[in-house]
Parts: sequence; structure tokens; C-alpha cells
Amino acid sequence: MTTEPLRIAVVGAGIMGSDHITRITKHIAGADVAAVVEPDAARAAAAAAGAPGAVTRSRIEDALEHDSIDAVIIATPGPFHESVLLPSLDAGVDILCEKPLTPDSESSLRILEAEQKTGRPRIQVGFMRRFDDEYLQLKELIDSGDAGALLALHCAHRNPSTPPGYTESMLITDSVVHEIDVVPWLVGEPIAAVEVRKPRRNSLAPEGLREPQLVLLETASGVLADVEISVNIQFGYQVTTDAVFERSVAEIGRTSGIARYVDGAFRQAEHLSYTTRFAKAYDTEVQRWVDAVRRGAIDGPSAWDGYLAAAVCEAGVRAQASGLRTEVSYVERPAFYA
Amino acid sequence: MTTEPLRIAVVGAGIMGSDHITRITKHIAGADVAAVVEPDAARAAAAAAGAPGAVTRSRIEDALEHDSIDAVIIATPGPFHESVLLPSLDAGVDILCEKPLTPDSESSLRILEAEQKTGRPRIQVGFMRRFDDEYLQLKELIDSGDAGALLALHCAHRNPSTPPGYTESMLITDSVVHEIDVVPWLVGEPIAAVEVRKPRRNSLAPEGLREPQLVLLETASGVLADVEISVNIQFGYQVTTDAVFERSVAEIGRTSGIARYVDGAFRQAEHLSYTTRFAKAYDTEVQRWVDAVRRGAIDGPSAWDGYLAAAVCEAGVRAQASGLRTEVSYVERPAFYA
Amino acid sequence: MTTEPLRIAVVGAGIMGSDHITRITKHIAGADVAAVVEPDAARAAAAAAGAPGAVTRSRIEDALEHDSIDAVIIATPGPFHESVLLPSLDAGVDILCEKPLTPDSESSLRILEAEQKTGRPRIQVGFMRRFDDEYLQLKELIDSGDAGALLALHCAHRNPSTPPGYTESMLITDSVVHEIDVVPWLVGEPIAAVEVRKPRRNSLAPEGLREPQLVLLETASGVLADVEISVNIQFGYQVTTDAVFERSVAEIGRTSGIARYVDGAFRQAEHLSYTTRFAKAYDTEVQRWVDAVRRGAIDGPSAWDGYLAAAVCEAGVRAQASGLRTEVSYVERPAFYA
Amino acid sequence: MTTEPLRIAVVGAGIMGSDHITRITKHIAGADVAAVVEPDAARAAAAAAGAPGAVTRSRIEDALEHDSIDAVIIATPGPFHESVLLPSLDAGVDILCEKPLTPDSESSLRILEAEQKTGRPRIQVGFMRRFDDEYLQLKELIDSGDAGALLALHCAHRNPSTPPGYTESMLITDSVVHEIDVVPWLVGEPIAAVEVRKPRRNSLAPEGLREPQLVLLETASGVLADVEISVNIQFGYQVTTDAVFERSVAEIGRTSGIARYVDGAFRQAEHLSYTTRFAKAYDTEVQRWVDAVRRGAIDGPSAWDGYLAAAVCEAGVRAQASGLRTEVSYVERPAFYA
Repeated sequence: MTTEPLRIAVVGAGIMGSDHITRITKHIAGADVAAVVEPDAARAAAAAAGAPGAVTRSRIEDALEHDSIDAVIIATPGPFHESVLLPSLDAGVDILCEKPLTPDSESSLRILEAEQKTGRPRIQVGFMRRFDDEYLQLKELIDSGDAGALLALHCAHRNPSTPPGYTESMLITDSVVHEIDVVPWLVGEPIAAVEVRKPRRNSLAPEGLREPQLVLLETASGVLADVEISVNIQFGYQVTTDAVFERSVAEIGRTSGIARYVDGAFRQAEHLSYTTRFAKAYDTEVQRWVDAVRRGAIDGPSAWDGYLAAAVCEAGVRAQASGLRTEVSYVERPAFYA
Repeated sequence: MTTEPLRIAVVGAGIMGSDHITRITKHIAGADVAAVVEPDAARAAAAAAGAPGAVTRSRIEDALEHDSIDAVIIATPGPFHESVLLPSLDAGVDILCEKPLTPDSESSLRILEAEQKTGRPRIQVGFMRRFDDEYLQLKELIDSGDAGALLALHCAHRNPSTPPGYTESMLITDSVVHEIDVVPWLVGEPIAAVEVRKPRRNSLAPEGLREPQLVLLETASGVLADVEISVNIQFGYQVTTDAVFERSVAEIGRTSGIARYVDGAFRQAEHLSYTTRFAKAYDTEVQRWVDAVRRGAIDGPSAWDGYLAAAVCEAGVRAQASGLRTEVSYVERPAFYA
Repeated sequence: MTTEPLRIAVVGAGIMGSDHITRITKHIAGADVAAVVEPDAARAAAAAAGAPGAVTRSRIEDALEHDSIDAVIIATPGPFHESVLLPSLDAGVDILCEKPLTPDSESSLRILEAEQKTGRPRIQVGFMRRFDDEYLQLKELIDSGDAGALLALHCAHRNPSTPPGYTESMLITDSVVHEIDVVPWLVGEPIAAVEVRKPRRNSLAPEGLREPQLVLLETASGVLADVEISVNIQFGYQVTTDAVFERSVAEIGRTSGIARYVDGAFRQAEHLSYTTRFAKAYDTEVQRWVDAVRRGAIDGPSAWDGYLAAAVCEAGVRAQASGLRTEVSYVERPAFYA
Repeated sequence: MTTEPLRIAVVGAGIMGSDHITRITKHIAGADVAAVVEPDAARAAAAAAGAPGAVTRSRIEDALEHDSIDAVIIATPGPFHESVLLPSLDAGVDILCEKPLTPDSESSLRILEAEQKTGRPRIQVGFMRRFDDEYLQLKELIDSGDAGALLALHCAHRNPSTPPGYTESMLITDSVVHEIDVVPWLVGEPIAAVEVRKPRRNSLAPEGLREPQLVLLETASGVLADVEISVNIQFGYQVTTDAVFERSVAEIGRTSGIARYVDGAFRQAEHLSYTTRFAKAYDTEVQRWVDAVRRGAIDGPSAWDGYLAAAVCEAGVRAQASGLRTEVSYVERPAFYA
């Protein structure tokens, strides 16, 4: 393990990339931002301003060649991930890749191929819910067996509103993808089938977007997770999971913090965005990743998990169209990811 | 409206019948138990002991003939309801019939026929959730439109354990039947289709009982209610509903009452039975029914609601077997029940 | 025990009296309103209209003489209680007297004298908190010893606003009087001393009213109850008690019922008045009193409890003025009230 | 502002010192542990093992002389603080001093003298509650005026049990000292008077320790804070504050996180120690202090705040003995601390 701070290139200087730059500079021990990679020069400069010593680059290849990069954080839109992942793997650096790994299972499989040639897992995928305190407590309860076997999960995933260009398939690939990652992680086995049911449409959704939807995820042993995905529910950002065990029910994701009695009511603020709801989870994810990379490892969801999610998403989008229970198939798991 | 107390015959002196006898005698204004009808003479005598002035009868016909009965409460098992309903309708008395009206839609239709001959609705069915404060508050919120249109409902219906003889179809006909009544009442339109999904089995259920189940009820306009029915969940008796609106989510059925910090935890008692959870709803139901009968009316779910529930239950049991979305069909609604 | 309904005279047809008339007529088994006693004839007639068979009287003596009265409910302002209590005791009827028994300890002692001449306790005082489910659960917990000995109580007693004419001493005699009754009942021993501390004044209180106040009640064994009394806190009506035990803390009086996520917050309605907060407690109080009277007894706080409260209130008002810890003294308890 | 990491000497390698060493090494950006100062060589070595590059020293003077120290964290028992503070001030380094600044106001005043000679505030005192999210939200609400003026505070400060040697005066100087700091910070004005009331003794406290106690703190404008201090309450570690405003009440410090329905109850874990309850507050405190020191400032309670707390504690200990309301007096505030 090195005692030198990790030199990180952050690729993409949008909201998420800028957030990571601030995080590494202000909250994370043992890492510095060495380069900001972003084709928009003004945006790159603005983002780099908060990171003393960071240079700006328009292409990842330049940073890898010139900036003594130890590790890369990829925060571009999903369709650009492959073009950053491949040269980074070639350079033998470690990578924290925001979800999705890539937008489809075929390209994800190409990444698995390339990663295996590097000799050890180099890619961690940014499914940050696995680092949230309450999800961790729920997983601990499941694994302990104290409540009996887990039988079912009721999940709600609610956003106040959608950005322009948000489409029906993105309900699965952009939003439910978090449950698609975290459900198998909680249960300890992959998703075997998907069904999508469509309740009455929210008239506050943009024209043409049929939501909310109810996505039924079924694991190999039959644990059934129903996921309500609502993306224009106005009141706030909310992610809850109720776990039904043989002799107990556990709940996570309820509001906390200061409470008030005011105007005839008890009132407690709900989150409005993932940036506050999961702020600590992002910090924990990145700190643990930095610590792991400094000792030559990853510490979180792997590229294989990224592939699994891509395969379920593909089945989920088919299930949206058909209305039928749709089975998911996977390639055989390479020993490399055992 | 009469100022004389209503003279009621309670038919069936089991747990529910005895509970009604105590209720009328101790908590309800304007009504007395005039007769306890129960073939088991010892049980009849025991139940009547708490009701000053009540006689015991082995057959409803005897009570109707001799005891100046104004109204009947039917608390026998469902298969015996028809044989009490028909002579009571013939006698022109009012009836509060515990759910189900009858066990199947064909016999329910016979009851509708007989009731229509009496000139006005005489039968109220004991779906007491409609009298629970929180359900009433939820209905008020739905009807107000303050939260936007109602889109979906997430219901949980959990019992600590099952009595001997409880079968898989009873998950629908005995338990989910409450949601089958209350969902259309909340939404304001009938159930159009049913699907049943079966999560991993609870090993604490009796051999051969496949539960929990997830019952998906879909109303005419597309409101989708998912109902988790768990009947051996050990920890308590719990009935919750989360309502998803266009811009809000409402929750009912959470624990309340005295709370303690003890042994490293915050702790608040959960109910163990419907007898405590819905105690006040039963009182309200019966008091409002008594008040209504004294002015010549009913004030709650009608025999038509009983028929609708029977029709959905039949479709639900078919859906359990097929695993498919199953549509429900109904006879045309008589003007009598408009 | 009689099987005939109790014939009750309700004295006072203001808000509380009218509420009791409705309660007895609509919700209470085994009792009827036989007379409404109220000098204002129009008000009397309006209140009696909802009670079939009730006559109106301007003086209690007339009702006692002409209306076959079994029992009296006194709902006039406190200064008039004595003039109703004495003739009612003379007539040998049972009495439910709204708090206070009388406004001072000297007059309360006169009532005790008169009651003892009737041969058995005839008066129950309307401290209805003793009939509230959560207070009962708290008392049960205290008496069980499960949490260790009770050491301290933190009470909050909050009203949205004050009616015209509300004075500083009424903070004690009209509002905290409920805690002055319920604290000794919970603890099982009388209040030995009172201190009053005055936080910063609420500018929303009427001119000249110095509130909120913090009233420290100390029982014989040293249990210390601090009571925040706020009477212009705007947001709602709230009565909470937190009990500090040797190894636990218990809380009562928190909001419950339907909850909503709306406008960036979790929201649950708070009560706005004692009429909703303690509606069920009033029903239970009156039903249990009716049941007790029919078997020749009372079932709740006695006239002795009314006297104890009057004595503490007197000390409390002195403590408001002095700012000092003020001890309370009582006459010896007659064997009649043992 | 330097871009070099801050070189910190941690003085004291007990629980708190070791915790800070881990924090700086693992969670804090921009700082390294350069030296561990601890007379017990074995303990020093153990604590330093987790901090790559840290040397061990037995005296602060040695570290200041040899280790290019930028800043010092003092985590020794309070009586040793002065002997670390003075040479550190002489050396012109910045200091984060765990509470208390010193054990009495006289020694605190000596520290103020010494600090003023250094030209700018160098000392921050470790009252970490000011960095807790919920306290910050409460302060924001107070400062906003949205709920009207603040009138009173109800605080509870509960520990499961006491370490050996814990004495009655430590209820004030070791425990309530946190409220003594945070109440003036919330209210925005100093504490003017203290009163201590003693409820019934907890028999689970060590022999001779009279607790719980109720400490009444009164600020200059009359805001009254009652603080229940319980230190053997067994069930958990709990710090709550309820703020009474003119038209609202706000609550902080309630349990959150995963909740379970199990064994007839709703259950949510309570903290057992300040190390978990305030873990995030400690992280925030140290990160913000590191950031401030790097730009040549402090960012939290000053030595003046440490002196104020010492003065109130002295009055509080006198109030414990007398049972009387005891006024607090302070020296005039030097312009240096304006």
C-alpha cells in the first residue's frame, strides 16, 4: 500500500463529475484530483478550479499519458463509458465507473473481456446504495437469519420530476436499475424473471411517458420484489424498501432529522434529490474505493455486477412492451469474477 | 324513527357473535339483544347471560316468530348465511351480515333477488374497514382530489398465524376479501382484473399452505393495488395501505400508542389481532347501523357489495391456480342498488 | 343492577353540556337524557332537541323533584358547581361533575362533608385523562415495575389559543389542573410541592398574560414532574407525557393516524382541540360511570381527588407569584374516601 | 492557503485520541497525523501504528520542536489541557482542544491571556454538537424566525451507565457541559442563571451518586432550558432537544434508521454511545477545522466559549449544593473574541 495520495482523473465535468471533484478534494482522505477530463474546455476549467493542482484534458488518453494517473472516475453519460473504460484498462489503472457499466449487455461483455486481460478486477461500478447505512443494516439482518428467511421485498423509488428526454425505457435502465443491482445483492442470488405492470398514468408526467410502473423482480429461489417506480410524484425524492421475512418485516428509507409541529401537523422534511438522500453513501463509496485501490483491489460492485444489471434491464424493457413475465438469461460467470 | 331500543337477534354465538352481544349490551346506544340464536344450547346460554332480557333460540325462525325482532346480526360461518338471510328477509327485518354475504356469487345473486322483493335495502354486509378512522381519512383524501388522482395502492395484510383448516383459497376468500371490498370503495369503481404472484414460501406456514402471496387488483380505470397477504408472519396483526397519488403518498395502519425506549431500542406495540386493531371500527359500524335501521335504512356496504366481492373472490381463486391476469365479470347492477 | 336505562339530568347546555347530551343519546348504552337544566331557555331547548324524551328545566331542584332523575352530569362553569352539587347530594342521586369539583379547597371540603352524609361516594369528578388509552397504558407500565421505578415525568400541555378572559392563574386552575390530577394518579402518591418558572413570554398571548410557564410538581417520594403549559402556541392542541424510569423512557401523546408525504415533507395531522384528542376518553369515562352508577358505585376520580386538586392549585397560584418552591398541605383523609 | 496536508500532533492516545488518529488517517482530506504524544510508550506506539509516517513523543514540547507540527489536537483528560495548551500557543500552532477547555474558569482565563498574545484565535474547543446535522437544522430554524421567537428548550441527555469515579459534580462538568455550550449557541446569548432540581434517585446508579437531575438553564432574555441528565438509564445513549417556539415545537434527536416489526412490536435501534450517535458530527468538526486551519482561522467554538462553559459549570455545581437559582457572572469579553 502506498502512503502517497492517489492521483485520480475525473472524466466528465457535469453535475456528477463536479460532485466527485468536490468530494475528493474536500472529504476524502488519501486521494487528489490530478486531472479533469472533459471536452468542453470552459466546463473543465470551472470544475478543475476547486481542485488545487488538477490539470484539464479533453481526452482520457492524454491524462493517462501525461499525468501519472493512478485511477479514473467515469462520470460521463453511459453511451460514452466504453470509450473511457477500454483505454483505462489498457493503461492498467483502477476505475470507478458510474452506473451503468455500459448501456447494453453486449458492450458490457466486451468490457469483461478487456478487464480479464489486466490480471485482476480493476473496475468498480457506482451502485452506491450498497454503501448506504440502512441498506447495509438490512443486508446484515437478512444475512443473520434472525428474522427467518427473506420472502419478499416492497420497494418504492420516487422522483419529483423528470428531466427533458426521459423515456419509458429509462424507467428501467436509469431508475429501477438501482433496485436491479441492490435486490440481488440483498438476496444473494440473481434475478431470474421480470414482469412490468402499469397502473393508472400520472397526468403530471410529460406527454407520452406512461408512469408510474410496478416492476416485479423474481430471484432464483422465488423472492419476489415489487418496485414502484414513480418519476413525477412532485412531493420529493424517496427510496424505501420493506422486507418481508418469515417472522418479521423491516423497513428502510423513512424520513428522519428535525421534526416540527406546525400549522396543525407534525412535519418532517423529505429529501428532494438523490444528492442529499445518498450524500453519505457516495462519500463512503468513494472513500472505501480509494482505500481499496491503494492496496490494489476494488471494494464494491464489479464489472460482472454491471453486466448482470445490463442483462436484467434488457429483459425489463422487453417486459414493459409485452406485459408478460419475462425470464432473464446470463452468460456463464468467468472464474475471474468468482 | 322510533325512540324505543332496537330488538336484535344475534345469530351465532361463537367469538364474533359473543363479541357483538357484548358490544350491543355495553357500548351501543338504542339497541338491545332480544334473542341469541344458536343450535348449541350451552353456548347460547353462556352468550345470552351477558345480555339482560335476551332469550335463546335454536332457529332463527323461532326468534322471528316469537321475539318481536326488529333486526338480525348474522355471525355464523359463511355457508350458513343464506339459510338465515332468506327467512329474515321474508320477515321484513333488517340484517347486518358478517362477511361474506354468501360464499359464492351464485348464492349471492339469490339473496339479491330476495332482498329486492322486500321493497328497500335490508342487508348491510360487515366489511367493517369502511368504518375505521384511517380508512375514512384516506377515502376523504382520495375524494378531495387534493393529492391529485389516485394511481396505485400498496396494501399489506398480515396475520400472526392461521387456525387449523385454513386453505390456500381462503387467502383470497377469507383474508384478501377485505381489500377486495375496500379497494373499490376507496377508488370508487369495481375491480376489473386479478393476478396472483407467489413469493418464496414461509416455512412457518402449515404444510401445504403456499403463502405469502401477492394479489394484484386492477380497477376499471387502471388503479393497481398490490396486496401482500401473509398469514403466518408471527410478529403481529398488521393492516397497512400506502396510497400513491399524482403528487403525494399517504400511509395508514402504522402503530401508535405508548412508545418506549428500552434495551437499546425504541419500541411500540403492534396489534396481535383484528379484535384490537379494529375494535373501534366494529363499534362504529354497529352504532351507525343501529341508528340507520331505526330510521329505516342501512348505512354501509350493501348486499350488492357482498355480491361484487364474491365475484372477485371467484376470479382470484382461478388466478391463484393459473398465475395469469384474470378478468372479472359481473351481472348488470339492478336499479334497486343504484 | 337495574336493567332500565339511567335517567340523567345534564346541567349546563354550553359546549361541554351539549357534547354530553349527544354522547349519552348517540353513543352510551344504558342511559337516557331525561332533563336538560339550563337557565337560558332557548339554549336549553336547542340542546334538548337532540335527546328524545328530554324535558328542559331552569333549576336543578325542579328536575330532581319532577323527572325521576337517577343521576346528574354537571357541566356548568366551576363557580356554579356547589349550588348544583348540594341539592343533588340531598336528593341522593349520583353525580358526574366536570372539573373542577369547586374552585377552591374550602368549598371542596364543604362538598366532602355533604357527600359523606349520603352514606357512600356519589360524586365522580370529570378528570377524563384517566380514561385515555395511552395514560392507562402508562399507568400499567408504572405499576408493573417492568421499567424500574418511576423517577421523573416531562409533560407538555399545549393549546392553540386562549378564550377571552383567560388569566394567568387559570394556567394552573384551568389547564395544569389536569396534570395536577393525573400525576398523583400515575405515581400513586400526592403532590408535596410546586414551583413555577416563567420562560420568555409568547408575544402571541393576549396582553398581560405571561405564558408559557414551567410548573414543577414534586410528589412525596420525590418524583419530579415538569409541566410546560403553553396556551397560545397556534399549531395545535397537544398533550404529551414522557416518563423517565430507572431503565427506560416511555412516551405518550404523539400524533398518529393517516400520514402523508407531500410538498417536500412527511406530514401527520395534530389535534386542534381536546374535543378530538380526548373524544374516546370522554366516551369511556361516561360509559364506565353509567355502568358503575347502575350497580350503585362510582368508577373514577372521587370528590376527594377533586379536593386534592383544589389544594394543589391554590399552592400553584401562590408559587406563580413567589417564584419559590411551595409546599402543599392537605386535611386528613376521611376513612370514607379510603 | 497551503495545498500541503496539515501536519497534526495528537496529544493523548486514549479512546478519544485514538479515534481522532483513525479519523484523520482514514476520513479527513488535507491532514496527516505527524506525531502521537503520549507518555505511555506502548499505548503511543499502538495508536501511531495506524497512522503511516507518524512518530511518537512523550511530551508535546518535543513534537513541537522536531516534527514540523502545524496543529495540535488535545485529547487528554481536562486537568492536563493547560500544560499542552500553553506551549502550543507559544509555538504559534493551531489547536483543537477536546472539552473542557480547562476544568475551571480561572485557568480558562489564563488560556485566554496566552492566546491573545498570539495575535489571532488559535484554539477551537471540541463541542462537537454544533456540527451535528440536527442541531444545525434547529439553529437554522431558530435564526430564521419562521416559528416565532424561541421561548423554551426541553433537553434530555441520557447515558446507559457511568464509568468508575464518576461524581455528582461531573453531571454538570462532564455531561451537561454539552448543553451548557449548545444552549447559548442555539439561543444566541449567554446563560444568566442555573437551578438544579433532584428527582427521585435511580437505584441503579453507583452508591452515593444522586441522579437523575433536572438542570434549569436561563438565558439573558429569559429562554428557559430544562435539561434532564440521566447517566445510568441502561437502555441507551440518547440526546434530544425539543424547542418551544411561539407557534411551533421542533424536536431533534429521535431514533432513525432501519425499523422492524418483530415480536409484537415496532422496533428501531437506539444508540448506545456518543461514538455512534455523534460519529458524523466528529468527522464534520475535524474536517471543517482542518479546512479552516489551512486558511489560517478556526471554524467552531472558541476559547472564549470554553471559558463561558467553565463559568456556568462552576455556578451549576454551586446550584447542585444549594438547591437555589444561581446567577452566573462573567469577565468582560475581550475585543479579541468579538
